Amino acid sequence: MAAKRPVAIVFDTFGSVVDWRGSLITELTAFGNQRGINADWTALVDAWRASYQPSMNRVRTGEQPWTVLDDLHRASLNRLVEQFAIRGLSEADMRHINFAWHRLKPWPDSVMGLARLKRKFIIGPLSNGNVALLTNMAKHAGIPWDVIFGSDLFQHFKPDPETYLGVAKLLGLEPGQVMMGAAHNNDLAAARKCGLMTGFFPRPTEYGPHQSRDFAAEQVWDVVATDIEDMAAKLGC
Amino acid sequence: MAAKRPVAIVFDTFGSVVDWRGSLITELTAFGNQRGINADWTALVDAWRASYQPSMNRVRTGEQPWTVLDDLHRASLNRLVEQFAIRGLSEADMRHINFAWHRLKPWPDSVMGLARLKRKFIIGPLSNGNVALLTNMAKHAGIPWDVIFGSDLFQHFKPDPETYLGVAKLLGLEPGQVMMGAAHNNDLAAARKCGLMTGFFPRPTEYGPHQSRDFAAEQVWDVVATDIEDMAAKLGC
Repeated sequence: MAAKRPVAIVFDTFGSVVDWRGSLITELTAFGNQRGINADWTALVDAWRASYQPSMNRVRTGEQPWTVLDDLHRASLNRLVEQFAIRGLSEADMRHINFAWHRLKPWPDSVMGLARLKRKFIIGPLSNGNVALLTNMAKHAGIPWDVIFGSDLFQHFKPDPETYLGVAKLLGLEPGQVMMGAAHNNDLAAARKCGLMTGFFPRPTEYGPHQSRDFAAEQVWDVVATDIEDMAAKLGC
Repeated sequence: MAAKRPVAIVFDTFGSVVDWRGSLITELTAFGNQRGINADWTALVDAWRASYQPSMNRVRTGEQPWTVLDDLHRASLNRLVEQFAIRGLSEADMRHINFAWHRLKPWPDSVMGLARLKRKFIIGPLSNGNVALLTNMAKHAGIPWDVIFGSDLFQHFKPDPETYLGVAKLLGLEPGQVMMGAAHNNDLAAARKCGLMTGFFPRPTEYGPHQSRDFAAEQVWDVVATDIEDMAAKLGC
C-alpha cells in the first residue's frame, strides 16, 4: 500500500477502464450482420485505433486546430470506410458507428472497483475523450465518476502536461494529491513528471493478438495492482 | 409535463439544490461556540452572500482578472472578519470557514429528486462555484451528479451566455436539448435567451427573513414544480 494517499484518483479510460477493442468489434460486427453489410470489422477497428495517435499528433503539432476526439474519430472513420470499400452507410449510420465510442463496455472489475474507490477518493476519468463522450460512456455503462475530465477542458491531449496539471488545478489540489490510474506505462510516466502519484494495473488483452507492451509495470509506481478492484484493496477500500 | 424533453438537466446549486444560508449559519455558529468566538454569525453569513454579486461583477467587468469563486469568497471573508471585529482566527481557521461553502447541505428533496432525474437524464450543476467546490459539495452531501460544470470551465459567471452555451457544447448537444433547473427566475431567463429549456421550483426560505423575490414562476417556464422531487415526477421519473 502507498504510504502517502491521494485525495483524488483520475483514470485513463480507453483500454484502462473500458475494453474499446472488444466492445467495438462486437458492436460493429452485430451492426454489419443486422444490416447485411459485409466487412472485416475487426480490421477496421484496429485500423481506426491505429489512426488515434497520428490524428491527435496533428492537433498537438498545430497542423490542425483544436478538435475534439469525436471529430477526429469521425474523420478517420470517413477515410477507413472508403479504404475498406464499405457501401450503403447513411449519415445516420456513420454517426451511430462513430458514437460506438460512447458505448464502450467496462472491463469486468472496473465498475465495482471504482465504486469501492469512490467511497474514499474523488474519482474521475482523465481521458483524451471529450466530455460528451465520457459522460455518455459513464451513463451507458454505469461508471460512478464524481467528475468528468475530458481533453476538451484543457484543449490538450495526454501526455501533454496541461492535462495532468489542469486536473489538479480544477480540483484545487497539489499535483501530488492526485493519482493517475492507467494500464499504460507512458501515461503514468508523463503524470509522474508533473508530480502526480501513479497507479498501474495491466490490461494484457487490450490490443487482442496485437498487444506488444504494458504487460507489466515498467517503473516503481506508487500502486501496482492486478486490476481496479485490486487497486481499491491496495488503497484500503 | 413538457411535451419536448431535454437530454440533460443542469442545476443552479446555491439556493436551488443546497441551503447555503441555513448551512453556513449552523456551521459557523457551532464553530464559534466550540472555539469561544463570539460574533453575529448570521449577520456575517448574510453580508458574505451580499458581497457575492458585486465580487463577480468586478470579474465580469474586467476590473479584476478571472478569479474562482473560492478566492472571491475568501477575499470577502477577509474583509468581513475585519468589519465584524472577529479576533483569534488562524489561517487554518479562515480556510476552514471559507470551505464551509464546500460543505453546504441539500434541501430535503434535492438528493432523492436528482437521483430520480438521473435515471432518465444527464444531470449536473451549472453553478458560479468552481469545479473543486462543486465536486467536494457533491461528495460531502451525496449529490449524484453525472458531470460537474463549474464557472472555471468557462471563465465566466452566470448569467453570461458563455456558461449556458458552454454546457451545451461540452455535452455535444443543441442548447434546446439542455434544461436549466433553478429557483431563480433571472437564471432561467438568461438560459432561455440562449435557447435552453427551463425548469423552476421555488425555495421561499433561501434568504430567510430577507427573501424578497422568486416566490413563484415569473414566466411560463417549460416545467414549474414545487421542488426537485416534483420536477422529477413532472418529467416522468
